Amino acid sequence: MTVSTFTPDFSNDEYETRTSNAQKAMQDEGLDALFFTTEAEVRYFTGFRTLFWQSPTRPWFLIVPRKGKPIAVIPLIGAHLMQTTWLDDIRTFSAPHPTDDGVALLKDALASYNNIGMLMGRESCLRMPLRDFERLRDALPGSQFTDATALVQRLRMIKSEAEIAHLREICAIGSRAFDKAPALFYEGQTLEDVFRAFRIELLQQGAEDVPYLVGGAGPEGYLDVISPPTSQRLQRGDVLMLDTGASKRGYFCDFDRNFSVGAPNETVQRSHQKLVEAISEATKVARPGKTCADIYSAMARYLNQSNSDVGRSGHGLGMQLTEAPSLTDFDHTLLEEGMVLTLEPSLDLGDGKMMVHEENIVIRQGTPEFLSKPASPDIYVIER
Amino acid sequence: MTVSTFTPDFSNDEYETRTSNAQKAMQDEGLDALFFTTEAEVRYFTGFRTLFWQSPTRPWFLIVPRKGKPIAVIPLIGAHLMQTTWLDDIRTFSAPHPTDDGVALLKDALASYNNIGMLMGRESCLRMPLRDFERLRDALPGSQFTDATALVQRLRMIKSEAEIAHLREICAIGSRAFDKAPALFYEGQTLEDVFRAFRIELLQQGAEDVPYLVGGAGPEGYLDVISPPTSQRLQRGDVLMLDTGASKRGYFCDFDRNFSVGAPNETVQRSHQKLVEAISEATKVARPGKTCADIYSAMARYLNQSNSDVGRSGHGLGMQLTEAPSLTDFDHTLLEEGMVLTLEPSLDLGDGKMMVHEENIVIRQGTPEFLSKPASPDIYVIER
Repeated sequence: MTVSTFTPDFSNDEYETRTSNAQKAMQDEGLDALFFTTEAEVRYFTGFRTLFWQSPTRPWFLIVPRKGKPIAVIPLIGAHLMQTTWLDDIRTFSAPHPTDDGVALLKDALASYNNIGMLMGRESCLRMPLRDFERLRDALPGSQFTDATALVQRLRMIKSEAEIAHLREICAIGSRAFDKAPALFYEGQTLEDVFRAFRIELLQQGAEDVPYLVGGAGPEGYLDVISPPTSQRLQRGDVLMLDTGASKRGYFCDFDRNFSVGAPNETVQRSHQKLVEAISEATKVARPGKTCADIYSAMARYLNQSNSDVGRSGHGLGMQLTEAPSLTDFDHTLLEEGMVLTLEPSLDLGDGKMMVHEENIVIRQGTPEFLSKPASPDIYVIER
Repeated sequence: MTVSTFTPDFSNDEYETRTSNAQKAMQDEGLDALFFTTEAEVRYFTGFRTLFWQSPTRPWFLIVPRKGKPIAVIPLIGAHLMQTTWLDDIRTFSAPHPTDDGVALLKDALASYNNIGMLMGRESCLRMPLRDFERLRDALPGSQFTDATALVQRLRMIKSEAEIAHLREICAIGSRAFDKAPALFYEGQTLEDVFRAFRIELLQQGAEDVPYLVGGAGPEGYLDVISPPTSQRLQRGDVLMLDTGASKRGYFCDFDRNFSVGAPNETVQRSHQKLVEAISEATKVARPGKTCADIYSAMARYLNQSNSDVGRSGHGLGMQLTEAPSLTDFDHTLLEEGMVLTLEPSLDLGDGKMMVHEENIVIRQGTPEFLSKPASPDIYVIER
C-alpha cells in the first residue's frame, strides 16, 4: 500500500520516554492503566495529530497500560494516520456506529485492569458521551476509575528540550509577526480587519494555524480580553491589544502586545512600562524551587493589585493554549527546569478598563529563557 | 462604564425563539431545566461567542429553565461579554478558583429542578471536570439528570433563515477561495505551502477563522482525509484534495474540492465525475419527508459502494463543523425544510486510495438549495 508522508512531530524516543515516565508514576500511585479521551493526551503519548478532533461526532480513546505500549481504540477513519505513530495495537470501530461507538472494544481493552486512572480534575473534560462512559463503568464492575489529573499534569508540565525547540519556533514566529504589526495597522481600521491582517501575517511568518486570537481597543485601555473583533475602528489615542495563540506542529505560543494608536499619553506609557517591569520582577523569582504563587505574588506586589477578574497572572503553555500550572496565590506547584510558562500581569485601570501584557518563558537554572522576544517598556506605536 | 462594541450575531428574537422552542420540548418531555457545559449550546441560546473556550482551564455553564430566560454561571472574566447578550441573570465565580469552579453556584441554580436534561448521547461531551459533575450530582439528591441529546439536536438541526443567511455567506466565501485555488497551487509546491496559501485566501475572501483544513494528495487518489500537511510536494498526476471548515460569525462551511495537478487521466476524471453525479442523485431524494438513510442509500447505490472507512456520507452543518444528523444507513431522521447538510460521497479506489467530494445544501420544499457553489463534473486542473 502507498505509504503516508506524515511523520509524528517527534522521534519515537520522545513518546517512549513520556510513556515510561507515566508508567513509573502509575507504579508509584498503584494505577494499572491510564484511560484518555482527549486530544492533547492522545497526541502526547502517540504523536497522532489531526484537526479532525474539530468534529464532535467521533470519540477517540487511548489506553496507557502500566507495561508495554499504549493501545489506541479509534474510529476506522483514523487508522491510517495512527499507523504512522509508534503504536502497534490499534483497534478500530466504524464510526458513527449504529449502536456502539467503541464501548465494547474499550471494555475488552480495560477489563484486566483494577485501578484505571483518568482525567477528572481541574482543566479536564470528558470527551466522550457521558452515557457511554457510564455504560463502560457499569460493564467493568471489577475496575475502579481514579482521578489521575495531577499525575498527568505533572508529566506534561515539564517540557523536554525537543518540545521546547518547537515552542521556541512558534514563539519566534509570533514575535516576528508582532514586529511587523505596526506596519499592518492604521487609524480608522476596523478591528475585524486588524485581526484578519494579523492572522495572515502569522501564517506568512510560518504559523500553521491560529486557533486563538483575541483582543480589544479603547482609549487608555480596553474592556475585556476575550471578545471577538467588531467593526469598531481604531482611533487616535486607543490602546490596541492583540493576544495570540498561534501554533506549529501542535505547539502554541501565547502572548500579547499592546499598541498605542498615535503617540501614547503619559498614563498609557506608564501603565505599559509598569506591566513590563512586573514581568521583570517575575523573572527574578522564576527559579527552580520557587512556586507558582511566588511568581504571582512578585507581580501582584509590584503592581499593588491582585488579578481578580482574570483570576491568574499566567499559566503553563505547550500543546494547549493554556495548561497547568496556574500563576495564582493558591497554586503552590514547585517550579522545575523545563516548565514553560506565560507571565501575564494585568492592570485594572478603573471604569471597567484594563491593560494586560504577556510573555512566554522557560524555567532554567538561573535566569529564565524568554521564548517570546521581550517587549520594550515603550509601548509599540501605530504611526499611520 | 464604557460600553462594549460587541453585539451577538443575531437579534434577541432569534435567541428568544430558540429558548421558547426548547421550553416547549422540555414541557413535552417533562424536563424542568436544561444544563449545558459546551460552547455550541451556550452560544446557541445566548449569542455568547469567544475563542476563550480554547483554554481548557475554565468551565462555563448555562441553565435553560422551563420558564424564563437562561441563567449563565460563568467565570468572572466572561461577565463583560455575557452582558452584551439578552440574558439578565449572570452569576460569576473567580476562576481558576482554589476550591470551587462554580459547583456551589450550580447547586443553588439547579436545586429547584427535579428533572434536569443534559447532553449525554452521541456527539456530546462533558466540558467540565468529571469529578465536579459528580460532586454536583451528589449535592442534588432530589434531582435526576436525564439525557436530552435528542431534544437539543432536534432543535439545532433545523436552521432559521437568519442562520441560513450566515451559512450562505461563509459557504460563498469558501466557494470564492476554491475558485482562486488553482492559481495558488503549482507543481512542486509542498502541501504545507498549499495549506498556508489556501488558509490565507480564505481569510482574504472574508472568513474570520479556519478551524479546519485537511486534505491529501497522491497519484489518482489520496490515502486519508484527516492528516495534517507535510513537506510532500505536488507532482504531475497527483489528485489534491482540500476540505475546509472555515467560519464567520461562528458558522461553518464544510466542503472540499479536488484538483488534478496537470491534465487528469481518464480514471481521475471518471472518479470525479461519478462523485459529482452521486451528489446529483442525493439531491433528487433530499426532500422533506425523506430520511437521512434515503440520501445515504441514493449515493451508495449510485457508487455501488458503502462508506465503511469514513462511516457516513454527510452530516449536519451549522455552529459546528459537524452536527447531527448523519447520512448513514441507520440514521432515520426525517428531513425537514431548513436542515443544512453536507453531502460527502467517497470512492474507495483500491490500494488504500480514495477520493471524496463534498457540497453543502439546505433542505427546501422541492430541490435543495446549494450553499456551496456546485463543482462541475470536470475536475479543477492546476496548470502550473
